[in-house]
Amino acid sequence: MRTKTTCQSEKVLEAAARLFGTQRFHEVRMEDIAAEAAVGKGTLYRYFADKEELYWALLTHSSAQLSRRLEEVLEPAHGARQQLEAMVEAIIAFFDENPHLFDLIQRAEVHHRPGVASPWQQTRDDLLRLLLGLFEAGQRQGEFTIRHPDLAALMLLGGLRSVIRFGKRPRSRELARQIVTDFLRGADMSQSCLVTEKIE
Amino acid sequence: MRTKTTCQSEKVLEAAARLFGTQRFHEVRMEDIAAEAAVGKGTLYRYFADKEELYWALLTHSSAQLSRRLEEVLEPAHGARQQLEAMVEAIIAFFDENPHLFDLIQRAEVHHRPGVASPWQQTRDDLLRLLLGLFEAGQRQGEFTIRHPDLAALMLLGGLRSVIRFGKRPRSRELARQIVTDFLRGADMSQSCLVTEKIE
Repeated sequence: MRTKTTCQSEKVLEAAARLFGTQRFHEVRMEDIAAEAAVGKGTLYRYFADKEELYWALLTHSSAQLSRRLEEVLEPAHGARQQLEAMVEAIIAFFDENPHLFDLIQRAEVHHRPGVASPWQQTRDDLLRLLLGLFEAGQRQGEFTIRHPDLAALMLLGGLRSVIRFGKRPRSRELARQIVTDFLRGADMSQSCLVTEKIE
Repeated sequence: MRTKTTCQSEKVLEAAARLFGTQRFHEVRMEDIAAEAAVGKGTLYRYFADKEELYWALLTHSSAQLSRRLEEVLEPAHGARQQLEAMVEAIIAFFDENPHLFDLIQRAEVHHRPGVASPWQQTRDDLLRLLLGLFEAGQRQGEFTIRHPDLAALMLLGGLRSVIRFGKRPRSRELARQIVTDFLRGADMSQSCLVTEKIE
């Protein structure tokens, strides 16, 4: 009997992501996922008891990927503002590379069992915490002082969601910088202190 | 034979909203909705051919209510900034009063037929247009000049969505003002031009 390997379960998750991204949840059968992943049905069921379990695993997997990505981009960035930009850029890129992810998250929230947090809630909390940490670092380092940290973190993350879903494509190369500039300095460029500065 | 009346169809929609707000879509039966609305099943089917049609009608109805509400609050507001605050406040209040609405919208987007826009898309477009109109008014009247109007409108609406879903309750009475202040002047209060001003 073969043992479970990370590699095989990743293969299954990637195949499932492709299928869930193009077909409705109830249209995707476990055997379709097995075929797409080129594994036997028996193998598939050794990893995931049913479609629902696979679905949750898929969201957990995406969440871990996003965390890893954020760690990678935050580490080399210098200063809180640059980290903020790196974080914004990485989140947009991640969702752009995984276009099925929004539907997965939305579906999970629509169908999640009452009383059980949706599997993406933890990720959302982590992102908020990460942002609040950057806000604190910005203040400690004298880069910026966020007036309403909790509110601003929600506004920024929610705004990103809209930009990712409904914003212009292809993305401007300046997008992350524009978002962070508007976020920190305000969308209004007519303020006296800004007129004298070159923003872009 | 009785004719359709607006009043009766509103009664049905309100009953449906209550049920869809507390039960999963597939658990709500047309007869439950008829009972909740205190109308006969025949009457119900005269208005709505099936649950899916009723569901779309419900979103359309909510959308019209929100538009009406926005007209009411924008009309008496003086100046673009005050209108912006009134709009933000009204959107938050509307979703707080209709807590089932997010789930309805999300469900509609998860289940909408491929190629057909979700029924809320029109509302989203209307809100964006309204915001862009306010931005233009603000510039015309010399109140503010939005640096990246399309981007800022998406960021603001998306941010509102997050605040409504995940923000602290009870809402601060200053919430709309805080959001608009951060939006126009930036979340960073350490900018020199802001330090001399009293924001709150």
